[in-house]
Amino acid sequence: MRNPRVAIMGATGAVGAEFLTILEQRKFPMASLKLLASARSAGKTLTFCGEKLPIEELTNKSLEGLDLVLASAGGSISKEFAPVAVAAGAVVVDNTSAFRMDPAVPLVVPEVNPQDIAWHKGIIANPNCSTIIMNVPVWPLHQVNPIKRLVVSTYQSVSGAGAKAMAELEQQARDWAAGKPVVKSVLPHQCLFNVFSHNSKVAENGYNEEENKMVLETRKIFHAPAIRVTATCVRVPVLRAHTESINIEFTHPMTEAQVREVLAKAPGVTIVDDRAASHFPMPLEASGQDNVLVGRIRQDASLDGHGIDLFVSGDQIRKGAALNAVQIAELL
Amino acid sequence: MRNPRVAIMGATGAVGAEFLTILEQRKFPMASLKLLASARSAGKTLTFCGEKLPIEELTNKSLEGLDLVLASAGGSISKEFAPVAVAAGAVVVDNTSAFRMDPAVPLVVPEVNPQDIAWHKGIIANPNCSTIIMNVPVWPLHQVNPIKRLVVSTYQSVSGAGAKAMAELEQQARDWAAGKPVVKSVLPHQCLFNVFSHNSKVAENGYNEEENKMVLETRKIFHAPAIRVTATCVRVPVLRAHTESINIEFTHPMTEAQVREVLAKAPGVTIVDDRAASHFPMPLEASGQDNVLVGRIRQDASLDGHGIDLFVSGDQIRKGAALNAVQIAELL
Repeated sequence: MRNPRVAIMGATGAVGAEFLTILEQRKFPMASLKLLASARSAGKTLTFCGEKLPIEELTNKSLEGLDLVLASAGGSISKEFAPVAVAAGAVVVDNTSAFRMDPAVPLVVPEVNPQDIAWHKGIIANPNCSTIIMNVPVWPLHQVNPIKRLVVSTYQSVSGAGAKAMAELEQQARDWAAGKPVVKSVLPHQCLFNVFSHNSKVAENGYNEEENKMVLETRKIFHAPAIRVTATCVRVPVLRAHTESINIEFTHPMTEAQVREVLAKAPGVTIVDDRAASHFPMPLEASGQDNVLVGRIRQDASLDGHGIDLFVSGDQIRKGAALNAVQIAELL
Repeated sequence: MRNPRVAIMGATGAVGAEFLTILEQRKFPMASLKLLASARSAGKTLTFCGEKLPIEELTNKSLEGLDLVLASAGGSISKEFAPVAVAAGAVVVDNTSAFRMDPAVPLVVPEVNPQDIAWHKGIIANPNCSTIIMNVPVWPLHQVNPIKRLVVSTYQSVSGAGAKAMAELEQQARDWAAGKPVVKSVLPHQCLFNVFSHNSKVAENGYNEEENKMVLETRKIFHAPAIRVTATCVRVPVLRAHTESINIEFTHPMTEAQVREVLAKAPGVTIVDDRAASHFPMPLEASGQDNVLVGRIRQDASLDGHGIDLFVSGDQIRKGAALNAVQIAELL
């Protein structure tokens, strides 16, 4: 695929905006760029490379004559329109959860399993943001020492719930500072000065959807159905970038020094681990960065040399969504 | 000890203020109450039961004629003055880390090991706040099914770093809302809209002091030197109450229903676990409460029936410090 005709499906969302930024920053070669959104946004414009591009309504017709569709308008929209785009001749890189666990659809993190792109049948799924941020630093370790079990707890920013949730947290801070009551409508609980279990639905097994995604998607991306994963996903009052506390149990003993050596060479990883200065990964510093920041690298004292603890932070809109999708498109 | 003459060492701090609240709320029987602080605060007053009490300077002399000292003025102050108070005839319940790991000093959570109070030699240590909040729900489970390993990640409020850190987060929110630069001086990093690894010193083993406390204190309180614990301690932009994601590996299989049954009867625990309403423990709701809130109770899918995940939140100034100390004093 050279010089494709590109469309962004869901151009007005938080990830849509990031698609425009990344395509511009990376000088992604395109013959044309079409912005698609709901009828509500049709007629408005968005700026790309200094030029105002019109937003068109997403319809079956709007998906004709395209080579690449970057989709991020929600699972039900992708379920309806991705097959239409594929039938019209495009490849869809889908940011939603619609096709991720479909065995006929590759689920790709370019640093982990780029080879899976080869067998796509029109749709390539982009993993969940928390999954991507965990997988980038964990995969290179798994390659040198197979992982038996992961225990992860997340510190997820509100923008994972969309631009409106981010605006809600900002408004809560303004209202609190003005002595006004703090109100909520987008997220189920007050976000300012609070922490709450991730707002996705809790499934039969007691895990919420976000947690089940981290478990199931990691196994699919790693081609490692035997990896054991447990996850606890939590929202924190952070605007952007997800942070994760990751505990790894390896098959064979692994020292902190060995882990550092692997991570120092790992693609997509930046080590931020200054113990003297108490400087470790933070979402404020991960925001806007392509790489996942990794620190607090230490031997897990509870696993007789077989365990490592990590603390990581990555921009979930960028590497966790838009950048990962554009990297897939670049491989195409 | 009946109707003791009481002193609060460190009356002007966040925990000192909470001591006054709790002694008043619980109608703690006292012959007298003396407020001790640094020379800087001497001469000021604090209100207790509607009465203004003077603050006196903490000196060797000020510790004479007392039966009970509730100490919370920092480790070095306790190291200097707790032995003085004991020599003068008082029992010291010490909230600092000064004596916690001293084998001659009992380290007590009243819901866990009240019997250890019996062998005190003048000083009884109050555990670290994160340790207490983890131990209250975990201990009753350990009693019915010995715990092999704990993996805990914390979401700690800034007031754990004192009243000044809390004021700093509030000021950061006000400054941000006013469009002013956000500045920091008490904590090493911006707290508003950020998350960072706990600001205590990182030790030789790669764990920070807070994490090592959770590991070592839990073993001492439980009288279980073989329990394996790994901890990752993190500050979040929350004013009050610490939240923790706790993964438990048991010796024998344990179902979610069995865990619920034990926790429903456990002292100091309130179950908050409404999956349909997405209502789980939150620091905003744990603040000001005596009990530790426990939810997200679920079978850990990665441990073949031997694991449970919990999400808990507790007021670290109250149960994590002042209340726990007053409960110890009540047992005395």
